[in-house]
Amino acid sequence: MNGAEALVRTLRNADVDVCFANPGTSEMHFVAALDRVSGVRCVLSLFEGGATGAADGYARMADKPAATLTHLGTGLTNSLANVHNARKAQTPMINIVGDHATYHLRHESPLKSDVEGLARPMSHWLGRADTSAEVGPKAAEAIAAASLSPGQIATLILPADASWSEGGVIGTIAPKQAPASVSGDTVREVAALLRQGGAVILLGGKALRADMIELAAAIGSKTQAKLLAQGRDPRIERGAGRVPIARLPTQTDQAVEMLKGVRTIVLVGSKPPVANFAHPGKPSAFAPQTCRFIELASGANDIGGALAALADEVGAKANSDLRIARVNMELPDGGITPEKIAQSLAALMPENAILCDEAVTTGRPIFGTTRAAAPHDYLSLTGGAIGIGFPMAAGAAIACPDRKVILLQADGSGLYTVQSLWTHASENLDILTIVFANNSYAILRNELKNVGIENPGENAIRMLSFNNPPIGWTALSKSFGVPAERVTTMDEFNRALRAGVAQRGPSLIEVALS
Amino acid sequence: MNGAEALVRTLRNADVDVCFANPGTSEMHFVAALDRVSGVRCVLSLFEGGATGAADGYARMADKPAATLTHLGTGLTNSLANVHNARKAQTPMINIVGDHATYHLRHESPLKSDVEGLARPMSHWLGRADTSAEVGPKAAEAIAAASLSPGQIATLILPADASWSEGGVIGTIAPKQAPASVSGDTVREVAALLRQGGAVILLGGKALRADMIELAAAIGSKTQAKLLAQGRDPRIERGAGRVPIARLPTQTDQAVEMLKGVRTIVLVGSKPPVANFAHPGKPSAFAPQTCRFIELASGANDIGGALAALADEVGAKANSDLRIARVNMELPDGGITPEKIAQSLAALMPENAILCDEAVTTGRPIFGTTRAAAPHDYLSLTGGAIGIGFPMAAGAAIACPDRKVILLQADGSGLYTVQSLWTHASENLDILTIVFANNSYAILRNELKNVGIENPGENAIRMLSFNNPPIGWTALSKSFGVPAERVTTMDEFNRALRAGVAQRGPSLIEVALS
Repeated sequence: MNGAEALVRTLRNADVDVCFANPGTSEMHFVAALDRVSGVRCVLSLFEGGATGAADGYARMADKPAATLTHLGTGLTNSLANVHNARKAQTPMINIVGDHATYHLRHESPLKSDVEGLARPMSHWLGRADTSAEVGPKAAEAIAAASLSPGQIATLILPADASWSEGGVIGTIAPKQAPASVSGDTVREVAALLRQGGAVILLGGKALRADMIELAAAIGSKTQAKLLAQGRDPRIERGAGRVPIARLPTQTDQAVEMLKGVRTIVLVGSKPPVANFAHPGKPSAFAPQTCRFIELASGANDIGGALAALADEVGAKANSDLRIARVNMELPDGGITPEKIAQSLAALMPENAILCDEAVTTGRPIFGTTRAAAPHDYLSLTGGAIGIGFPMAAGAAIACPDRKVILLQADGSGLYTVQSLWTHASENLDILTIVFANNSYAILRNELKNVGIENPGENAIRMLSFNNPPIGWTALSKSFGVPAERVTTMDEFNRALRAGVAQRGPSLIEVALS
Repeated sequence: MNGAEALVRTLRNADVDVCFANPGTSEMHFVAALDRVSGVRCVLSLFEGGATGAADGYARMADKPAATLTHLGTGLTNSLANVHNARKAQTPMINIVGDHATYHLRHESPLKSDVEGLARPMSHWLGRADTSAEVGPKAAEAIAAASLSPGQIATLILPADASWSEGGVIGTIAPKQAPASVSGDTVREVAALLRQGGAVILLGGKALRADMIELAAAIGSKTQAKLLAQGRDPRIERGAGRVPIARLPTQTDQAVEMLKGVRTIVLVGSKPPVANFAHPGKPSAFAPQTCRFIELASGANDIGGALAALADEVGAKANSDLRIARVNMELPDGGITPEKIAQSLAALMPENAILCDEAVTTGRPIFGTTRAAAPHDYLSLTGGAIGIGFPMAAGAAIACPDRKVILLQADGSGLYTVQSLWTHASENLDILTIVFANNSYAILRNELKNVGIENPGENAIRMLSFNNPPIGWTALSKSFGVPAERVTTMDEFNRALRAGVAQRGPSLIEVALS
């Protein structure tokens, strides 16, 4: 058994059974080993960011890590923007990065680069296996690190000769560590602050699963604390039959307004809320300066246990009366607006859909409007690095092959990793993509005002638009094998959405926005 | 004057007048400053690797650096694969990376990452301007660092508040440092070794301009030394009316065979030649173990002066008899093969074309076959990080608007940065792209054998092909605004090539390979 085979067997023994790959020469033995070991599915991406973005979407839905495979330092760099998003989502991920054979590294070969240096800023755990005997054990370490609650980025560098040499040893998988319990003192301290009133319970990460939200809502209801989701959340279970939760806005003015007068913020898998960007004359932090933060549980803690203990302490019980009933929406007609798109989605999306949201400006009404739609999961852009939509949808669809994935995709963001549409086609994934085609970076037009630029000149305007020429999204989609159509009215949109929901397999709707 | 305007004015004063940009919020003041300062052209890329790849192509042809503009750490990561290629090409480049406002950095905002950590492995010079007053002077430092011979990567991190605050100061541009002269002792030592026979003069970097090649060829002719280009060269001036030079092959077996028996390799802007990758049982280094290396001049030296001194020392004179005459080729017909494509190119390419080569396997015959074609520049993939073709062609076309750029593009590589086709259209660049569509990573199929995998299984084969579904290149190209056609015979190819050469503006030919 060579090192590569030991690696694949170690992954499979740890139930890591999907690898999103963009391999090169130095990874050929790993790829070959996949054919000698059954039970690991290898999914090709045509660009590395497609692999890591898919691994993020996969882990958010499967609640276990996927592996990725990239080629040397330069393949790794192409993958890092979506590793950043996964890091901010607290996603477990095992990134295997091939490297030159150990004895080749002393030469100045064309592809030589500082792989560790490039990986370090984005990795919680970073290791290298220099011999075939080390590969399996190091892989087991990487898996353990990735699996630490709430989820970490582990990067394992795999030299080609460690991969191809005999002497591989399967790594021993450590039992998954249970997340740390929260102390009774912390629970009592939080309860005391809640009783003083003026509190917000801010949920993030795994606290946004339906059962956690229901428990937190009961606590909020009992203590008059307001319940909010952090925003930019990796996954929220929501919709009809579940307890609804509002989201802290990402825009500074609105978020500051929402938190006005708040005296305490209880953090549950969340962090003190801050603006995406500083703007002249506006605060970075959203909460009032006098607001006190107290952490009930971090992502590393047993969040469910902490919420249960707190509910006990304040005398709250999970209460199914807080669940929301399905609200049926009328299908809007006439011209297309973001609000009407949101209404149609709320009306037509199927049970248990997975909504992947990289819609940026156009998508803003969607979250609120789908509050009482059919139950679904809502996956957001967590780290602000645009270009996760197509990959994330692919990963979610592979994790949940029996659920419809609906991708809400801004056009500018989608173009960063548009090659992942091919993976939708090649794996025949059940993904309906809705592209909002305004042919501009609309968010930057707003930001110009926020940073104090009132009258942008020609250069500035040219940097914010890509309408000359416009992108032909239906041709683009079809070129990657995904059927597509363009809609210019709500009637056309409604019909296309209905058809896209009814069929299985990938499809794309280009929504023409003026 | 704010910091951003000081930056733009400093760039312009240093004759850095093109900026390839993919900006975000934190870079809006830089973009706005471009409208207050005339003379800096800003070119939008829809992905960051498009910006840095274009800056590389631009600098190779303009012999001066361009600036790039990217958004925070994650925008930077997307740009780094082509920075790696530029680094290996010894290209001067000034990368401006926006960052959060200084006072925002203490918060855990979504897009916060370790910008310095990510930039360091790819940068020769790395700096940050924390106040508006520092921006101009730091930019001047970056420009000086980038401009050091032969060319360096300078990365300047620009916090948003340093950009938007008043108090900007234009940086003072240091006079460009002349490259260091080579000592007479070195010249005499090289001459003595050449006289012993069995020598190769290996040219790289700027030693591959026509006048340098002619001088080196005269030295070779006088001393019976063989002249070779390093391979993976940033730019070779060649074709009819110039002295031809052969290239060291990139494949180990062929390169080792070519260097068999060589006793001395004289390095002129080159490095000891090594394999792209280690292969089991094959050497990493191409030269015999007994071969002696001596460096006449590195990229940091005055290469022209060193060659002139060496010519004097050995009594050689530049000799126009060594120049090659134009050889007219017949236009091949029938089925398409790489060899026939190369012949058609040699026959039909116009005077002073710029050939950008990311054709990988299919392109191998092209270099040899175009040896006596119309004079042209030949730009290669220097660092092995695929995905530079579309961007490099864009940069070269912007540097040389009166010359036809012909891009030889492998399909798999092209898909990494395919968004740059849009820049071909939006800037109406005179680029004819030829895509070799075999729908596979053909080079990896060869590499499987090289690394000892004889019978790849299904997983392995699926990682090497993207023919299910195949990419629709003409639709893809048109979706970005570039007219395209698909050819399946040599007659169709010849007609399309003739038409593409005759017209101005971007176009694409998809060559269907079986």
